[in-house]
Amino acid sequence: MDRAKDTPPDWSEQAGADFLQLDPAQAPPGGLSHWIAESVRTAIGDGRLPLGARLPPGRRLAAELGVARGTVTEAYRRLAEDGHVAGRGRAGTVVVAAPATAPAPPAPGTGRAPADPFATAPGPGVFDALRAAPARIDLTPGVPDLAAFPRAAWLRAERAVLAQASPDLLGYGDPRGAAPLRAAAAAWLARNRGIRADPARLVVVAGTAQALGLVARILAAERVEAVAVEDPGSLGVRQHLAHWGMATPPAPVDSEGVRVEALHATGAGAALLTPAHQYPTGAVLAPDRRRALIGWARATGGLVVEDDYDAEHRYDRPPVPALRAMLPDHVFYTGSVSKLLAPALRLGWALAPERHHGALVEAKRFADLGSAVLPQLVLARLMESGDLERHLRLLRRRHRRRRDALISALAQRLPRARVHGAAAGLHLTVTFPDGLDDTALAQAALREGAKAHPLSWHRVRPGEPGLVLGYAATPAGRMDEAAAMLARALAGAG
Amino acid sequence: MDRAKDTPPDWSEQAGADFLQLDPAQAPPGGLSHWIAESVRTAIGDGRLPLGARLPPGRRLAAELGVARGTVTEAYRRLAEDGHVAGRGRAGTVVVAAPATAPAPPAPGTGRAPADPFATAPGPGVFDALRAAPARIDLTPGVPDLAAFPRAAWLRAERAVLAQASPDLLGYGDPRGAAPLRAAAAAWLARNRGIRADPARLVVVAGTAQALGLVARILAAERVEAVAVEDPGSLGVRQHLAHWGMATPPAPVDSEGVRVEALHATGAGAALLTPAHQYPTGAVLAPDRRRALIGWARATGGLVVEDDYDAEHRYDRPPVPALRAMLPDHVFYTGSVSKLLAPALRLGWALAPERHHGALVEAKRFADLGSAVLPQLVLARLMESGDLERHLRLLRRRHRRRRDALISALAQRLPRARVHGAAAGLHLTVTFPDGLDDTALAQAALREGAKAHPLSWHRVRPGEPGLVLGYAATPAGRMDEAAAMLARALAGAG
Repeated sequence: MDRAKDTPPDWSEQAGADFLQLDPAQAPPGGLSHWIAESVRTAIGDGRLPLGARLPPGRRLAAELGVARGTVTEAYRRLAEDGHVAGRGRAGTVVVAAPATAPAPPAPGTGRAPADPFATAPGPGVFDALRAAPARIDLTPGVPDLAAFPRAAWLRAERAVLAQASPDLLGYGDPRGAAPLRAAAAAWLARNRGIRADPARLVVVAGTAQALGLVARILAAERVEAVAVEDPGSLGVRQHLAHWGMATPPAPVDSEGVRVEALHATGAGAALLTPAHQYPTGAVLAPDRRRALIGWARATGGLVVEDDYDAEHRYDRPPVPALRAMLPDHVFYTGSVSKLLAPALRLGWALAPERHHGALVEAKRFADLGSAVLPQLVLARLMESGDLERHLRLLRRRHRRRRDALISALAQRLPRARVHGAAAGLHLTVTFPDGLDDTALAQAALREGAKAHPLSWHRVRPGEPGLVLGYAATPAGRMDEAAAMLARALAGAG
Repeated sequence: MDRAKDTPPDWSEQAGADFLQLDPAQAPPGGLSHWIAESVRTAIGDGRLPLGARLPPGRRLAAELGVARGTVTEAYRRLAEDGHVAGRGRAGTVVVAAPATAPAPPAPGTGRAPADPFATAPGPGVFDALRAAPARIDLTPGVPDLAAFPRAAWLRAERAVLAQASPDLLGYGDPRGAAPLRAAAAAWLARNRGIRADPARLVVVAGTAQALGLVARILAAERVEAVAVEDPGSLGVRQHLAHWGMATPPAPVDSEGVRVEALHATGAGAALLTPAHQYPTGAVLAPDRRRALIGWARATGGLVVEDDYDAEHRYDRPPVPALRAMLPDHVFYTGSVSKLLAPALRLGWALAPERHHGALVEAKRFADLGSAVLPQLVLARLMESGDLERHLRLLRRRHRRRRDALISALAQRLPRARVHGAAAGLHLTVTFPDGLDDTALAQAALREGAKAHPLSWHRVRPGEPGLVLGYAATPAGRMDEAAAMLARALAGAG
């Protein structure tokens, strides 16, 4: 009986001369056996012939190569002597050990000195480059105090989740996310952001970054081609919108937030806004601006993408309700735990106007079938148990001390710098008199040992130079050192 | 001194008549105080006025509404008596307790009886509908034995990760994923799939579903407008490609895998293939088909998207190396732990041809800035420690028993059904003589208590009717019951 007819094709059929990419014309004269053995050894070493794989029968390989059978037998004998293969009777000759291989050569771009993030206009990799740059003090905005991440509470919650979760929850699930997190996040939004959200309408997303892409795709399907952005406004957000095909006309920001008549003048069908704490200036959208914005949305059908990136962090003022709470039919709302717990969790939520809810769910489905479930269930427990509120209170106290220390160090070391937007958030912005190249200043600061964003990165049109300084990750006791570094950089740049 | 000038706008400015959406014209005659109190109570209840929020000063609200100040004072007094607000001296009147609110009404589509997944042609929500349908035995293909998920090993690894991970790892990170997982996955691919991959070139993705979207966007940028698909082939994959704008011309599959001349005839610039274990037929791409496919790719510049969805699961045959191992310059490769551990982890990996690597990284960056880090580090530990290999061996033994039990139950209960593709994977396909409506059969089976996919869901062109049966989640002892349900359904449908 011919076994080949009733079993599926097996490895030994694959691993012929073809699969091994053997061409006898390439063999050195007189060294055919050695060359075959070497070729097989290479195939084992680079993984093409994994452990357990069968070598092609010697007779067949010899026929395919047009060499004497003894030549192949000799090659296999050498491989067996080296311990790489072993005869297994009817199963043929099988790979039993891989040769020690040298590690793969580093790919281009790895292992080099980090690129200077300030050498050229900032591209998509600029935040990677800045992250990779070594610095004694990191004032990069946008990250909470990661050393405070509640590891013990997280592990405790994870243990409880793993002890209780039904196996079904580990399968493919609801693209909107796990029900417990949707319920907990809806309650969180009601408590902290004044938003009334039906958990069924909330979509768990992989952070605000993913929400931007999902919303951009929904807008594109609605033939919206431009999303007006605040100027200054987040460079990263602008990059995301541009990547997803949106034009990003700028609307200027002043101390009362975005200028709505300028937003209107862009003609854009949508606007990306940070009403609770404008990024990076820290302005709060003033009541009459809110009214004007609501008027704009109702008159033009305009849509707002509300990036509520750090609204839970506030120090000297009462909470400002989310715009979504006042204008649910026109606002895509998105927030995340990136500034509450850690960006690396990649967990957030999004709400669409009711008529776009279905499109949001489909966009999330076809993005990734929904976010990972275990971290969602863990986060839901942290929210339900009050652990997250406790963590937020701890962060607030700690961040406030750090902010106060930075402000007083700046007042002493950089008396000409004006401080903006310090009443909330994780960063403040300082501006300097005109005529300063703030990218050169940030570059000089990095040389001094302090990492920060030049304000011009976040500008579309020219404006006052400055720096955006995150204070959450640096202990209060090091702020004077940080300000001294900035002052030395300023002295060199000014 | 006017405090308003040196503090940022605060809540009490927001919470005026406008913010509360108060229009005195709507008040019932003679009941102005009651109406104001009710409006504020509603705003507290629906979260617009959260705990701690200040009510607008009575004098200002009265002026805005054009009512007597005493009317507002009376409203605030009632709210205070109800315990919703309290006077706080100079801080004004503050919200201290929310009224008990009725739960939000259920959103459309929730709380109803689950939709019949077989009633209409399958749309994007069909898998949700099937998942929601109750059944005593779940033979839905594509999910491993979730009850076997190694919870203890996962928690152990998570504890170690949380004990050791540097805080930096919790910030924004490399869009390619965490370095330890990229290294562990590259080693896994070499050992198990014959692929030599530089960890620097591997991109961690949120499962194969995300990889499909990323690759589709790269292909679209290369002006590829069609991705040929296997027929039969995965409905879900076809839905994903179509969502991302790709035409999906079908190329027929026979017992040796996809017919390459038919693939060539589609004229598509790319093809989505499952060479190691064709979905759903289970065919292995035969050696001469591999050669023809390599010829097609080299002659036309064609690209292959290799969906290596369950290649680690094999029972009666040696491993088949990934196509990527033989054709790295033309193959986008993607695999995941969905079938090794759990789909809900949403973790997998992708490799692009070298010239598309940069585009893959940028696509991932702008999709979500990279996958969540903690589960990546946990998975890396499970891979490094050998726990994942041990789990795979356990699954293999268990799945093999279940497969064997299903095959023998089918042989007894449905002797006319032909079984395909049982040598590997987590599912098998049965076909029946022509003339049977397999959607009606699946519908009847669901009524009998067994959930499965009709083969026609996965077909583009008409062909033999059948069912796709996943056996991984059902104990061997219940397979006879499952086959009996199918037999009763067949007797009713046939």
